[in-house]
Formats: sequence, C-alpha cells, structure tokens
Amino acid sequence: MTGNKALVLLSGGIDSATTLAIAKSGGYEIHALSFDYSQRHARELESAQMVASAFGVEQHLVIQFDLREIGGSALTSDMAVPKRRLKDQLSGAGTSSFIPVTYVPARNTIFLSFALAWAEVLLAEHIFIGANAVDYSGYPDCRPEYLQAYEAMANLATKASVEKKIQFHIHAPLLRMKKSEIIKKGVELGLDYALTWSCYDPQPLPAKSVKRKNLSSLKALRSSLVPCGRCDSCVFRAKGFQEAGMQDPLTG
Amino acid sequence: MTGNKALVLLSGGIDSATTLAIAKSGGYEIHALSFDYSQRHARELESAQMVASAFGVEQHLVIQFDLREIGGSALTSDMAVPKRRLKDQLSGAGTSSFIPVTYVPARNTIFLSFALAWAEVLLAEHIFIGANAVDYSGYPDCRPEYLQAYEAMANLATKASVEKKIQFHIHAPLLRMKKSEIIKKGVELGLDYALTWSCYDPQPLPAKSVKRKNLSSLKALRSSLVPCGRCDSCVFRAKGFQEAGMQDPLTG
Repeated sequence: MTGNKALVLLSGGIDSATTLAIAKSGGYEIHALSFDYSQRHARELESAQMVASAFGVEQHLVIQFDLREIGGSALTSDMAVPKRRLKDQLSGAGTSSFIPVTYVPARNTIFLSFALAWAEVLLAEHIFIGANAVDYSGYPDCRPEYLQAYEAMANLATKASVEKKIQFHIHAPLLRMKKSEIIKKGVELGLDYALTWSCYDPQPLPAKSVKRKNLSSLKALRSSLVPCGRCDSCVFRAKGFQEAGMQDPLTG
Repeated sequence: MTGNKALVLLSGGIDSATTLAIAKSGGYEIHALSFDYSQRHARELESAQMVASAFGVEQHLVIQFDLREIGGSALTSDMAVPKRRLKDQLSGAGTSSFIPVTYVPARNTIFLSFALAWAEVLLAEHIFIGANAVDYSGYPDCRPEYLQAYEAMANLATKASVEKKIQFHIHAPLLRMKKSEIIKKGVELGLDYALTWSCYDPQPLPAKSVKRKNLSSLKALRSSLVPCGRCDSCVFRAKGFQEAGMQDPLTG
C-alpha cells in the first residue's frame, strides 16, 4: 500500500511543525525531510529533529548542500537580516519592498525537488509543505498558483508517474490560515511550540539577562541561542501568539 | 542587460557539452552549472571542467549533495549498472523495461531547480539543458511536456519573475536530434569530444592493454579511468559516432 505514506518538508519552524502534526493526525506514515543549506539560522535543524522525534516519524532525512555558493539572500550571505521592517510595516510606520531580502532564490523549488525524488523512491504520493499565503513574507513560492504548477510538473517528472501511475499531491494545509489559527491548530494536535524555532538571526544566550523560567525549556537544546525578536519571522511569531491569546513557550 | 546571460547545465557528457557549444555560438555569456551528487561516474565532472574551460565560460559552479541518501538508482546506490541491455535491445536480441535502473529519481528536476536559483541571482533568463527525446534512455524528465511544465512552474517561482518580470526560458536544443546529429553539430562548433565523458561505470585503466595513441588523449585527465563500453550510455555514444561516420576521440 502506498496511499498512506506522506513526505513532510520540515524546517523546524511553526508552520512546518504544524503541517507535520496535521499530516500525522491524518493517519499518514510520516517521512520528514530537512535541509542543511548553510542557512544563517541552522539552529532550526535542532528544532526539526526534536519535532520529528516528538511525533515519532518513520524517518527523518537531512540533505546537505551549500546555498551560499548561489547567494542572493540575507539568509545565505553576508547581507544583514532586516530588523523592525515588519514591525514598522504592521504599525504603518514604514515602507518596504514587497518581497524581503530574506527570500532565498528558488528555495521551495529546490526543497520540493528533493522531496519529489525521495517520494518517488518511497512511492509516497503525498508531499506536505507548510506554505502559507496569509501571514507570511510575500514569498512567491508560497502562492497557490505556484504550488499547483509544481504539482503539474511533478506528475510529468518521474519514472513512478510514468510506469506506476503514481499521482503526486502537494498538500499545503496552512495555505489560507492566519498564524494565530495555525498555532491554535498545532496546540490542539499536541504540538509543543517550545520545540520549534522561527528566528532568522539567532543570538548568543546572554548569560545574565535570561529569566530562570526560560532556562528550563532551553535546557533541552544543544545550542545556546535565543531569538533576536526583531526579524520578520520573530515578529510574525509574536503576533501569532498574541492574536491566539497564548504565551510563546519558547520565549515566554 | 540581462538578455545575453545563459545558464547551462553541464554534466560533462556529449549532450550537455554540445548544448554548451550551441549556447556559446548563440552569443550568450555562459554560466555553467555541474553537480557532484556522489554519482558513480563522478569522472564526468573532470570532463565538465575541461569543456567549461575550453569554451571560456564566465563561471563554472559545482554544487555538491549526496543523492545516495535518497537512492533508487544504479548511479547512486550499490545496484549494478546494466550491461548489454541496450546493445541487445538495439539488435533486437533482448527485452528490457522502458525506463532503466540508471534513471535517477527527479534528477533533472533537482538540477533545474538549482539552475533556477542561480539564474535568478544572475538575472539570466536562459537556462539550457541537454535533454534529448530521441537517442536516450527513456527518462521521463527529458520529455518536451515535462520541460514545458517546468518552465511554467519556474515563471511562478521567483522574486525576479514577480518583481522584475523576468521570464525564464528552458532551452533544450537537442530535444529532437539523433545522437549522430548532435555529434556532427558539436564538431562543427569546434567541440573536442575527447574532453567529454559518457560512461556510467568507469573502469580502472588496464596497464598493458591500452594503445599508445589513446594515452596521449588520456594524459590530460587527472584520473586513470576508461569507459566500460557496455552500459547504455557507452552504447549510445558508440552508435552516435558510428552513425556520424566518425571515430570517437576518447576511445578511438
């Protein structure tokens, strides 16, 4: 039976972790796929591992390559991660271009392509991605029309689709959900968001200024890094928890 | 000006080398992209480098990742590379499945996705791939309908297409050419096929059995490997040179 295998792209952030929880609740056998692409915030990979482990996935594969060679993003080059951009934008105080410099060229296309390769080997027809077109940074490869075009291409790309009539489905269950709705859904499914990581620009743990209650949740982590609190991803996370009426267990 | 930059996928084989020669003859500034994916025939990367150098490309980037982690192919696992399969098939002596085990799951999709990422950074609208739908091994990701679907997806995938209205074009100039026609075209464009490599299953150079005349062309190579002469790729190469009425400078 091939119908119950799902491949989940897992960065370790709120969206991908919630997507994994949703796939798991759908009864799928989960194969999680993460990428070590020399991202500035490689700390997220520890979170990916913890989330995969918490949900008892069948397999968790981490593929390694270096997107710094291609560059073109603040997450894979020396470009500075913008701070307060979104905060200003959300409060109406600033202007900013539509797609920020944290956009990584063709990242979801690369990620989905490795997912497609592994899905073909596993004969897994279901590929889950935490793409979101509401509370997000305007990335073009999170739009529904992009995901539809990817699925159409994927179904022409493989030996499995030609010889075994495998039909790949790209699932993006968060596509039209607000961040606060995503968080509520995850909590409902038993996801502990202390395991996740969002910050694009992790900072060293300041020795004195950390409250004791934070230390207990941070203890499980191998690295001593804290979120910057000011990048787009931190701002979206904070806004999501605020709107959900919850405290972020990672920073709260 | 962005119109004259081309990104060429360069494996180091006959098809990709000829594709590069064609792109170069079209007046494009060439950026060549190769992949070290732990392929059994990594020898082809030496050829890629030699071809890139012979044609004076602007840049040659080699991206590294390990497709053995995903497996599913004789080129990236311990599976044996089939021998005489095509030879028997071409002579009507044998039967074989449509797509051979040398197919690598979603390989062109992965390659094109890195190409798209780099093309976006370079603002290069033209991506060249040596896909061929005539004298090939029946790979699904070499078919025209696949390439069209990829192009449609690519034009929805990037910040460059949203913000700068960049239109990516996937060029596959060899798509409907026979191997012999490809070889004639390359020779006409000054491509020395001694620089290229096709064999899927390179063998150590037998100390005594090599003719002196071969040694001179092999001298330039860093590794001492010779083609097996029996895998699909060797058989297509030999048939191509035979039908073109030429001697293969690599083995002749």
